[in-house]
Amino acid sequence: MTEAHHGDVAYQGRIDNGIHRYSLRVYFEDTDAGGVVYHANYLRFMERARTDMLRCAGIEQRQGLEASGADKGYYVVESLQIDYRRPARLDDVVTVVSAVEKVGAASCVIRQRIVRQEELLTDATVVVAYVGEGGRPRRQPAAWRAYFERLCQAKDIQEEA
Amino acid sequence: MTEAHHGDVAYQGRIDNGIHRYSLRVYFEDTDAGGVVYHANYLRFMERARTDMLRCAGIEQRQGLEASGADKGYYVVESLQIDYRRPARLDDVVTVVSAVEKVGAASCVIRQRIVRQEELLTDATVVVAYVGEGGRPRRQPAAWRAYFERLCQAKDIQEEA
Amino acid sequence: MTEAHHGDVAYQGRIDNGIHRYSLRVYFEDTDAGGVVYHANYLRFMERARTDMLRCAGIEQRQGLEASGADKGYYVVESLQIDYRRPARLDDVVTVVSAVEKVGAASCVIRQRIVRQEELLTDATVVVAYVGEGGRPRRQPAAWRAYFERLCQAKDIQEEA
Amino acid sequence: MTEAHHGDVAYQGRIDNGIHRYSLRVYFEDTDAGGVVYHANYLRFMERARTDMLRCAGIEQRQGLEASGADKGYYVVESLQIDYRRPARLDDVVTVVSAVEKVGAASCVIRQRIVRQEELLTDATVVVAYVGEGGRPRRQPAAWRAYFERLCQAKDIQEEA
Repeated sequence: MTEAHHGDVAYQGRIDNGIHRYSLRVYFEDTDAGGVVYHANYLRFMERARTDMLRCAGIEQRQGLEASGADKGYYVVESLQIDYRRPARLDDVVTVVSAVEKVGAASCVIRQRIVRQEELLTDATVVVAYVGEGGRPRRQPAAWRAYFERLCQAKDIQEEA
Repeated sequence: MTEAHHGDVAYQGRIDNGIHRYSLRVYFEDTDAGGVVYHANYLRFMERARTDMLRCAGIEQRQGLEASGADKGYYVVESLQIDYRRPARLDDVVTVVSAVEKVGAASCVIRQRIVRQEELLTDATVVVAYVGEGGRPRRQPAAWRAYFERLCQAKDIQEEA
Repeated sequence: MTEAHHGDVAYQGRIDNGIHRYSLRVYFEDTDAGGVVYHANYLRFMERARTDMLRCAGIEQRQGLEASGADKGYYVVESLQIDYRRPARLDDVVTVVSAVEKVGAASCVIRQRIVRQEELLTDATVVVAYVGEGGRPRRQPAAWRAYFERLCQAKDIQEEA
Repeated sequence: MTEAHHGDVAYQGRIDNGIHRYSLRVYFEDTDAGGVVYHANYLRFMERARTDMLRCAGIEQRQGLEASGADKGYYVVESLQIDYRRPARLDDVVTVVSAVEKVGAASCVIRQRIVRQEELLTDATVVVAYVGEGGRPRRQPAAWRAYFERLCQAKDIQEEA
């Protein structure tokens, strides 16, 4: 896998055995005067990965975000917990590794680890909730929920193996 | 205090009875296409407040950050947990309310709530660690640790009253 | 004015003789691994100042932004030119000094300089356009236009004096 | 080129005939409450592209940034001019198209256009300066300067053709 000249094709992550992997490079904008990635920016990295995980299932969030009434629906972060183990630095390539841990009617629990090759940088658990008009919680579309459940199961099967 | 024309005087928060309060307005840069503050940006607000809390004690972080060898020392976030209850919106004035919960040799636990008047928007617990050269943990300066302990106690006394 | 404990009162800039001044402190979030403010973030500082300049005239942008149809109206940046002279650093207090240079039917030209005490850090000219539904240009409300023209004239009178 | 599952390979742009192209997707973090990309964030996109253009030549900035004394050297933005023509929106894929316009001893002029397929979104001219210790201007390494001159000439030849 040496081909790294992606040109006009936007980057996309991939899912294998229920695990989503999304790589990105650290730019100046991500760092702070401490010389490492600013702590809030790891949340941006994780959100990019979650958005990409939806796209891998053919789900684009803009449509549901811009709709109104009963068609309005999109994901928001309900809570998160993150441990910062080691810092990422300018020019690093890091990978956000995401696994669906639990799927509810209106929310999902996702574990997201950011690694630099084999090294663990951050370890987070993020609860995302599906909301509609006025930010009120609503049930996830059935097809989406089924998708997350398949991811969740594929991962478990792999871990058992 | 109705005077709100601060002109060339930079904003500063204040500490009362061990509780630090820091108000800020939400600008376009803080929001996202969902029409509310982007979830990672509440971490920026909390970091501004923690920096200001240090400044209220006469501690400026740049000196320790730019020093080298034994003089190098600054705070990093070790872990955090945050619940998002209600969103802040463009033009809102919100207040970050910070309380020192626990003081260790090399770290502090700080509870930070962001409110809009009486309404709770986010509720977080942040563990900050003091580090030196190479990001290695080191003991907080004794005077700083004593300061955090006083904040912690002042808050407890108030709550008991 | 030496009182710098603003507590729960959000910061607000002020206008004197047609010149708007807005001070802010540089936080970790604003800096990059070069140890200074990341170049794109000066644009955020200038946008905060422009928003505050509107607020000084009693104009809040959220209402016009969230309205629909004929009531929809808000400002966008049409173009800008910026010279970076000296960098701002962590903990610095800088002041955005804004002056209306020219007022048109649907746009304004604003000169915005960021200074650290007497020292010029950045010097920019920003063209903002008033837009409505679908981002289409529209005439500024007459009262707002009159306000900008008064600022523009007050500044000129001062310079002539 | 339909393969868009890049997995653990970080995205990289490419240079053809002296023109560098770098594509990226718009995420929530890039947008604001206006529903489009926040104006300052196009500068982040352009900076990512410039960094990538250097990497295409084997130049990593971290080394020169973290060095001291005579080895210290990195690029900063000296000035820029940008026209905002049309907004980018959530989920859009945009391409930053960069062309070296002029190469001096200590600086380069780069034209950077951001497009969405054939549509021009922003058009900017950026002057970057090479600096060393204390941010003082210094000559670009000869090999780098030669590289930029080759890009500049390759582009001109193409335009003449």
